[in-house]
Amino acid sequence: MSYPSGRHFLQIPGPTNVPDRVLRAMDAPTIDHRGPAFQTLALDILELLGPVFGTKGPVVIYPASGSGAWEAALVNTLSPGDTVLAFDTGHFAALWREMAGKLGLVVDFVPGDWRHGVDPGVVAEKLAADTAGAIKAVCVVHNETSTGVTSRVAEVREAIDSVGHPGLLLVDAISSLGCIDYRHDEWGVDVTVAGSQKGLMLPPGMSFNAVSEKALQASAGAGLPKSYWDWRPILKGNRNGFFPYTPPTNLLYGLKESLAMLYDEGLPQVFARHARHAAAARAAVRAWGLAVVCVEEREHSASVTAVLLSEEHDADKVRDLILDRFDMSLGAGLGKLAGRVFRIGHLGHFNDLTLLGALAGVQMGLQLAEVPIHPAGVEVALELLRA
Amino acid sequence: MSYPSGRHFLQIPGPTNVPDRVLRAMDAPTIDHRGPAFQTLALDILELLGPVFGTKGPVVIYPASGSGAWEAALVNTLSPGDTVLAFDTGHFAALWREMAGKLGLVVDFVPGDWRHGVDPGVVAEKLAADTAGAIKAVCVVHNETSTGVTSRVAEVREAIDSVGHPGLLLVDAISSLGCIDYRHDEWGVDVTVAGSQKGLMLPPGMSFNAVSEKALQASAGAGLPKSYWDWRPILKGNRNGFFPYTPPTNLLYGLKESLAMLYDEGLPQVFARHARHAAAARAAVRAWGLAVVCVEEREHSASVTAVLLSEEHDADKVRDLILDRFDMSLGAGLGKLAGRVFRIGHLGHFNDLTLLGALAGVQMGLQLAEVPIHPAGVEVALELLRA
Amino acid sequence: MSYPSGRHFLQIPGPTNVPDRVLRAMDAPTIDHRGPAFQTLALDILELLGPVFGTKGPVVIYPASGSGAWEAALVNTLSPGDTVLAFDTGHFAALWREMAGKLGLVVDFVPGDWRHGVDPGVVAEKLAADTAGAIKAVCVVHNETSTGVTSRVAEVREAIDSVGHPGLLLVDAISSLGCIDYRHDEWGVDVTVAGSQKGLMLPPGMSFNAVSEKALQASAGAGLPKSYWDWRPILKGNRNGFFPYTPPTNLLYGLKESLAMLYDEGLPQVFARHARHAAAARAAVRAWGLAVVCVEEREHSASVTAVLLSEEHDADKVRDLILDRFDMSLGAGLGKLAGRVFRIGHLGHFNDLTLLGALAGVQMGLQLAEVPIHPAGVEVALELLRA
Amino acid sequence: MSYPSGRHFLQIPGPTNVPDRVLRAMDAPTIDHRGPAFQTLALDILELLGPVFGTKGPVVIYPASGSGAWEAALVNTLSPGDTVLAFDTGHFAALWREMAGKLGLVVDFVPGDWRHGVDPGVVAEKLAADTAGAIKAVCVVHNETSTGVTSRVAEVREAIDSVGHPGLLLVDAISSLGCIDYRHDEWGVDVTVAGSQKGLMLPPGMSFNAVSEKALQASAGAGLPKSYWDWRPILKGNRNGFFPYTPPTNLLYGLKESLAMLYDEGLPQVFARHARHAAAARAAVRAWGLAVVCVEEREHSASVTAVLLSEEHDADKVRDLILDRFDMSLGAGLGKLAGRVFRIGHLGHFNDLTLLGALAGVQMGLQLAEVPIHPAGVEVALELLRA
Repeated sequence: MSYPSGRHFLQIPGPTNVPDRVLRAMDAPTIDHRGPAFQTLALDILELLGPVFGTKGPVVIYPASGSGAWEAALVNTLSPGDTVLAFDTGHFAALWREMAGKLGLVVDFVPGDWRHGVDPGVVAEKLAADTAGAIKAVCVVHNETSTGVTSRVAEVREAIDSVGHPGLLLVDAISSLGCIDYRHDEWGVDVTVAGSQKGLMLPPGMSFNAVSEKALQASAGAGLPKSYWDWRPILKGNRNGFFPYTPPTNLLYGLKESLAMLYDEGLPQVFARHARHAAAARAAVRAWGLAVVCVEEREHSASVTAVLLSEEHDADKVRDLILDRFDMSLGAGLGKLAGRVFRIGHLGHFNDLTLLGALAGVQMGLQLAEVPIHPAGVEVALELLRA
Repeated sequence: MSYPSGRHFLQIPGPTNVPDRVLRAMDAPTIDHRGPAFQTLALDILELLGPVFGTKGPVVIYPASGSGAWEAALVNTLSPGDTVLAFDTGHFAALWREMAGKLGLVVDFVPGDWRHGVDPGVVAEKLAADTAGAIKAVCVVHNETSTGVTSRVAEVREAIDSVGHPGLLLVDAISSLGCIDYRHDEWGVDVTVAGSQKGLMLPPGMSFNAVSEKALQASAGAGLPKSYWDWRPILKGNRNGFFPYTPPTNLLYGLKESLAMLYDEGLPQVFARHARHAAAARAAVRAWGLAVVCVEEREHSASVTAVLLSEEHDADKVRDLILDRFDMSLGAGLGKLAGRVFRIGHLGHFNDLTLLGALAGVQMGLQLAEVPIHPAGVEVALELLRA
Repeated sequence: MSYPSGRHFLQIPGPTNVPDRVLRAMDAPTIDHRGPAFQTLALDILELLGPVFGTKGPVVIYPASGSGAWEAALVNTLSPGDTVLAFDTGHFAALWREMAGKLGLVVDFVPGDWRHGVDPGVVAEKLAADTAGAIKAVCVVHNETSTGVTSRVAEVREAIDSVGHPGLLLVDAISSLGCIDYRHDEWGVDVTVAGSQKGLMLPPGMSFNAVSEKALQASAGAGLPKSYWDWRPILKGNRNGFFPYTPPTNLLYGLKESLAMLYDEGLPQVFARHARHAAAARAAVRAWGLAVVCVEEREHSASVTAVLLSEEHDADKVRDLILDRFDMSLGAGLGKLAGRVFRIGHLGHFNDLTLLGALAGVQMGLQLAEVPIHPAGVEVALELLRA
Repeated sequence: MSYPSGRHFLQIPGPTNVPDRVLRAMDAPTIDHRGPAFQTLALDILELLGPVFGTKGPVVIYPASGSGAWEAALVNTLSPGDTVLAFDTGHFAALWREMAGKLGLVVDFVPGDWRHGVDPGVVAEKLAADTAGAIKAVCVVHNETSTGVTSRVAEVREAIDSVGHPGLLLVDAISSLGCIDYRHDEWGVDVTVAGSQKGLMLPPGMSFNAVSEKALQASAGAGLPKSYWDWRPILKGNRNGFFPYTPPTNLLYGLKESLAMLYDEGLPQVFARHARHAAAARAAVRAWGLAVVCVEEREHSASVTAVLLSEEHDADKVRDLILDRFDMSLGAGLGKLAGRVFRIGHLGHFNDLTLLGALAGVQMGLQLAEVPIHPAGVEVALELLRA
């Protein structure tokens, strides 16, 4: 590329653009994590976290990536040899399955085509068949970052309840929290896994478990070995605003600011904004004559749109060209979609004109890469966003 | 507006977007301005400033806005009652004339329509007629920020020389320096006036005088009272890397970084980038069916495009709507263009996708404000930038 | 020096340590200075500035160093050939006198020994003798940064009034504002000159004129040429939150934050803190067996302590050694005190332990430089600060 | 407290003061962790990490607190039911033992008085007795943050080798790395555990495992379940500059800067600086007539000094008073030393004058809390630092 001028367009589905306000809040001396100033900060944050998760229960904070919070969800609730029901909805679902296996769990992995979400009907069917009660938990990725498909968590819970199965519901909301309406309590989720670097608009390095009363009870008998991830000492310390080990203080500074931004905008407004941008992105993709990976209208992600190219085109070459020529990062195809798919992130700290700049870059990039398209995507998105 | 999310689009013709690298460089403790660390910083900067001005001579740095550097140019070279030749090329030219009057100078102000630059033929004519040698200086605004018209400074110098007139050439390069090719020495400019907040990509608060040998000689006999603006103590202190009064240390931190960025990109590349973006912006304006203020092809500004609306439309309402709806700031019409014109800045730290986002915002805003346009501007700009 | 680790000790009497909160506030994108967000910021600041100046009248903000605000005070109120009464109280008073001369004013300069403040008795005497009314203004440096001597401004005003003289009172409060109790209105000051980089805890680059009603009236007839410094267009623009030329936006971000800090701490508390630290510093100097420049108890500065060495010792060598060995900057002796004096700044964002660290550095430095002292300064200061 | 002015004195033994340079480096937009810019950053850092650990082998980076890196050391090398030899040298050693137990390991825990380091003689004795080869690893805390006692790791390795025992040597260097000479390879350490927030001068949230060849081999057969902590996918990804899950990008920006600072100063100089400050701190404590927790001269920590009060005085009250009155944080007594001990951190980004300010605060605080001391500590430290 010629020397980059202006701001990089970070259109991957996370880490997302960290707002200046948040970077500034983090750009402050670290304080004593055992002192009164920290205590006030922590108690404030622990209270502020509830609404974005849709819970009145506790939210456990980890100095860790999102994968760590997945591990925490499993080791706090399950015992070696337990079976979990999981679904092959995409790359991250597959990684979660792999993790469960490594930790000594048995995974009943329902096949999928990576273009649909979890089928609540299959959930009901599977659990109805589990008369022996082998299945201890159902693992669902709410928003598959690799495919742009959103599973219907509320309906999954209804399916579990419909057959009276006692399984826990563990949900990965990493790329939906703060982007897509999410209701831990109302939907009966037992553990919600989330990370800092998506809708919460922070750098990576912090992750979360929102924990239901039922999950807490399960943790009492969970036999997987655990220490770092153990909820109990954290929840105990949190009561006074402290942590059993050194917390990520500067990320917490940022979290307080980013939660303030989300609540100032209003969660319903945040969700509507994401949905509107996603609709414009999809409209552009279709106007170009390309396919969106997600095939069900009700399962389209509001935070990321995955675009499928035909086999004769290499999506990674398109991405490289766009990075080189227009200084924009797009998400790669992951796992079995590698090279076939590129992903446009439109989540976090984001607005109409940035989306239009991004779509303009994709349109030009596709043309320059000689992917045959109808160059009408930007125009269609403009119409939609103007309305 | 709904709560703003994402980055504000600052598309005024300055202050421009300060790069994160520059903001970070400024975000540092102020140091002793009489100590060795400051000395090193100042000597480095004084050396680095030359190329962007196109001079091997001294550049004086002021803790002041650009207007202060105008005043400095006048009070260092002229005496009460001296005549200066100036041109009504736009709002800033008019302000400079007003300043000259306030300081006790006589201004021979050549009328203009604010849609053309300085006519070198008129310069020659005027100076040829000045047989009494009353005119001591010719004042030219290189790039009129209010109109998007760039005057041909080299030709103005040729015109002066063609009639053998001894007048100084004082040039306001505030919105051209670091954006449009500029050659203080080669063009025979005597004082170049510049500011921090345009092509130098810094916050406002610092301004400059590049000074020719001839201007220095003139300063010896210049009778206007001066103290703060006096070049001599500054140039004397600068020899050792110091200043006669407290310099704007943190802006200097930023200046070192922004000069590094300009030189890393390469000045010819920087100028080509600005020209390319300006061409795309003009193409969009014309595709919309609107008029650019500047009427001469060779005088189009590379840093700002002023768009003229017909009388029945209020340009300020369009700007307000765009700010409110798309969180983008555009430049207002100034002086006699107030309400008739809006200006799109495309200078400084800037790139293709941001320009396209900006043009998309203008296009949608014009439509929403019911200014009749042909909605093809973005498309045309896309074609041009893709080439 | 070995490689510096830890924070530099910036113990010059300004620029002072910029608090992290203030640096962070400044580390933000520059906004449109003609837009509504700027307007709100400016109106807020213009309102917040009053209390720290002790005025209900207007305060004019300049993008300029403190020297610029001096020049503004003179050119807005005086005419060529006017006489001002000034006092040789130190280096900055001498510079102000020089500036007045350069601008075409006549200075009646009362001699001084740089160890005393302005003598109100002499003021009364001088003005009583001015039966012709030649003296238009009395210029006083409130806190002489070069000597650590504070003049009694209220008593100067009483002296002026006692003889019924109509002269304006112009006061340089650059190193006292925000450090030492200051009352523009109550003391009958006509123009107060201040800067950003001392008690206001900002980087240099912004300065101020607080303006009395009488000064405003004087400005109507003031004949010195002016444009950049002219109060009128600024005051006019300020009414709506705007400025006639580009304001130093990022310094204004910082100013809002630093004023909030001063008011949060409480001005009386801020003044008491400075006085307490100054007393501890003086106690240390005396315990070392060295002389403070200021000789009158009631004139000791609360923001800076100037220490006089005997002739056989070079104060600059002491400072260099301390910088090299302990990474601490001290103020140099200025003007006729060069080499004889070093100055300890204890103003702005500052606390007990930093003062004690600083005094420890001075004590060790004096010993290492073989200045014969009694090494009891730190101990005495400790006693005082513990009380 | 009255409103705090000036910089907080953060004298806990970590998190330490993050240098402005490092905070600034971190205050930057997060980039695509799968793109080329990240790749370059990661490869640079992975290469730069070696010297500070004293290793030519791999260093694994975790988005996690130091405790997480402990857990990683255990789960990567050991199997359920394995025995580890550990030593009750302080609070963190005790926590590590607790963790090992939670993870299903058997801990042979050698009692201690928290005033001595690990006794290499006991190591040899214990391992000689382990004829069955039950002990798989020896766990040593290099620098006990809770007591200020440094164990002699090289001698521990010699002890292990002296009896020909095959056990791994796992070392917690959390509060010694970058402060105290450390040689992973030379000392034959198998896993070195470290964190970001001590000698590396970063905020908390990142931790490390330096891994020997022998440890890597052990990991192949290690049976403890693991996924997040698993070295193998990380080492595999690292070969190309990538990570198997989202890395803590902004902490990595900071790490690059802090490593540059350490290497610019020079590791031997860094270690000497810490040793010198520790000696001054101990001298002050003794001059006050108080006891240092560490009783062996050769085991004094260079990064933290723990001060023991007699039973009638509450160390927490002293700390609270000092925080309230002088805005300085000191480390609390932990575990069985709670209330009896306070700890002075003198590590990381630190210098002479800050240490003297800190000691001044402790001295005044002890006096104000009516702990009977001889007020000579600061004076003694001054003498020592001046030498």
